[in-house]
Amino acid sequence: MKVILSINAGSSSVKISAYSAEQNKKPSQLAEAQLSGITSPPVKLKYSRGVVQVFKDRDVCEDVKDHDDAFKILLKTLIGDRDLPDISDRGDISVACHRVVHGGDYASSQLINRETYHHIQTLTDLAPLHNVSALKIVRTCIEELPGAVNVACFDSQFHSTIPPHIRTYPINADVAKKNQLRKYGFHGISYQFITSSVARFLGKDPNMLNIIALHLGSGASSCAIRGGRSLDTSMGLTPLAGLPGATRSGSVDPSLVFHYASDVGKLSPSSTRELHISRAEEILNKQSGWKALTGTTNFATIASCDKPEHQLAFDLFVDRVCGYVGAYYVALGGQVDALVFAGGVGEKSDKLRRRVVGQSSCLGFEIDDELNAKKIHDIVQGIGKEGAKHRTLVCQTDEQFQMAKECAENDDLWS
Amino acid sequence: MKVILSINAGSSSVKISAYSAEQNKKPSQLAEAQLSGITSPPVKLKYSRGVVQVFKDRDVCEDVKDHDDAFKILLKTLIGDRDLPDISDRGDISVACHRVVHGGDYASSQLINRETYHHIQTLTDLAPLHNVSALKIVRTCIEELPGAVNVACFDSQFHSTIPPHIRTYPINADVAKKNQLRKYGFHGISYQFITSSVARFLGKDPNMLNIIALHLGSGASSCAIRGGRSLDTSMGLTPLAGLPGATRSGSVDPSLVFHYASDVGKLSPSSTRELHISRAEEILNKQSGWKALTGTTNFATIASCDKPEHQLAFDLFVDRVCGYVGAYYVALGGQVDALVFAGGVGEKSDKLRRRVVGQSSCLGFEIDDELNAKKIHDIVQGIGKEGAKHRTLVCQTDEQFQMAKECAENDDLWS
Repeated sequence: MKVILSINAGSSSVKISAYSAEQNKKPSQLAEAQLSGITSPPVKLKYSRGVVQVFKDRDVCEDVKDHDDAFKILLKTLIGDRDLPDISDRGDISVACHRVVHGGDYASSQLINRETYHHIQTLTDLAPLHNVSALKIVRTCIEELPGAVNVACFDSQFHSTIPPHIRTYPINADVAKKNQLRKYGFHGISYQFITSSVARFLGKDPNMLNIIALHLGSGASSCAIRGGRSLDTSMGLTPLAGLPGATRSGSVDPSLVFHYASDVGKLSPSSTRELHISRAEEILNKQSGWKALTGTTNFATIASCDKPEHQLAFDLFVDRVCGYVGAYYVALGGQVDALVFAGGVGEKSDKLRRRVVGQSSCLGFEIDDELNAKKIHDIVQGIGKEGAKHRTLVCQTDEQFQMAKECAENDDLWS
Repeated sequence: MKVILSINAGSSSVKISAYSAEQNKKPSQLAEAQLSGITSPPVKLKYSRGVVQVFKDRDVCEDVKDHDDAFKILLKTLIGDRDLPDISDRGDISVACHRVVHGGDYASSQLINRETYHHIQTLTDLAPLHNVSALKIVRTCIEELPGAVNVACFDSQFHSTIPPHIRTYPINADVAKKNQLRKYGFHGISYQFITSSVARFLGKDPNMLNIIALHLGSGASSCAIRGGRSLDTSMGLTPLAGLPGATRSGSVDPSLVFHYASDVGKLSPSSTRELHISRAEEILNKQSGWKALTGTTNFATIASCDKPEHQLAFDLFVDRVCGYVGAYYVALGGQVDALVFAGGVGEKSDKLRRRVVGQSSCLGFEIDDELNAKKIHDIVQGIGKEGAKHRTLVCQTDEQFQMAKECAENDDLWS
């Protein structure tokens, strides 16, 4: 038996889940703790042990400057809990598994040693907004959990199967190779969980499963999964491409960047005026999306409000999601076992699901309004009409569990 | 009777077509002249009068520095042709109609006067790579054809019907408004021609016509047309977005710009390093696309060659085109009268058409190999299998004719 800690650093939160695991067996969750509001205080702590909710929205009095500070508080919470005997001191944690957004060419999880650590560090150039906080937590684990093996689980690894003609950008091939410019795709830990869970639900061999999966949350993406493997996904070189999110623009005309700053619009091709590009990248990732259109990052508010700008944001999101449903339906040649909604918005917004499925009815998806209105309790739950050409499902995705499961199946960790 | 001159300045060529026209009647072509190779000499002149090919690939000895020089040579060719009595001097030309790529919010063609000219000039900021040469030719016409009325026909005007939730980018709404950042769309003169021609071919009221139109040439785009109007199109704020073209990347992760230059990859969000953004815009427009992947801008070469990089470029293009076919099929709710191929590549590459239609067969499109292999003679020609759920057509699009037709129907020009 090993204690595995799955660590998931999001944009403004850190979540850790502790599991007891045996080799090649399903890990069993011991506890879960989350600190949210890191970039937008007040910082709140949520902590549950098994079915017991210990803290719900407890104010945190410590100073939380960054994700690493947050992680340290979460770790202390777990270790300090006398009712959690499996983790009574730091030495009880055998594996710390870190969700790392950008894994470059890595097609599988990696044990973190000097070599892989430095390689992941170089990938930070490709994902400056995404890999930094995870790497800082890795360093803390190396220092504070000397008995633990660290594992990096990449959000991009599931997409390593995307074929060359789909992952290639039609740009100068030498520059693309040198600067590693191609579609990588993200949310892969979630898509792997969805694939296994939906295959089990449908009683299908995962290697025979074809689905259109929608991971819709404050970060949103879509994925065409053929034979259990990623065939295409909407995110690209970075998580910016594809669907809009809470603060992310998603795909826009690549030229928009050149016209965003008011003085930049005046540029002629021969001009030498310059733009602080890192600022532009930050604007498109952090100050766009439905927050920029409506003022809120809360999709439930957007879906339920009849202000014109909220309706615009809702309709815009539905339009972009349906575009991918159509594109991926064709990519899968119409051989689709199910359309699957996941992620915070996908799991909670029955209104969004109804609109997306309704607008895609020409492909053979049909919603059952009664099933769709039900609370989602199961890992996978059907919301499609009986007799429809294709099934429609909701999947409660669980990245931390998926990471722990991959560790339980990783022979290198058990030898 | 008026002589209308339609002037079409492309990336490396200028084409002019002269028509005799009466109000609200179909214009009849008198002559057509084209100068190609402006940015990649040798410059060649093609000139035909009615069915007579006068020059085919005549070398041009004059110095051709830009599109305006090219236009002056073409004009001289027409006026100097003694066998073209309708245009024996400059005064014979009543209307000069100019294809202007970016028309901003204009929803229709505009007579060019001081006011509209200056407004179009300000739009050059949005399309520095596209509007400049057309405007220079407009100035030449004002000076050299004092008896002619100048009309601007915009490639964007057909798309003024795209609804707000589709044309809006999810970015800061104030900045978007101030800098006019939204989807405009282009190739609209061609899509208008396609809509009228396909409606006539199918015997349908154009206002009831639903098609997925693909204008595939060295610039390539797709358009969902519902009730004869543009519902969505793949190009955006500028022609860069959407499908790749001969030298254009099409949609890429908007972050790619920040990672293109090798030293730019090293940027952190807080860095102050800068990129010459106008250079980046030029690279994505002029040095990308299938030219960057294969070394040639000739799609016929790419389609017929079995080198791996040619096959990659071909497969990549098919993949991106099929993505739009699926997306627009859903946007039209499956109510699709036809899938229509147009543009140089769409009209000539039966191999591309076969692959796109084959890959979209799950939607009910089916190709007839025999019809598809035939040379395209008619304005609209069927290539789909009899009995297929939806029709598949090829349309020989004609932007110059469409511009002349709009002039013939423009009451302001005949009062």
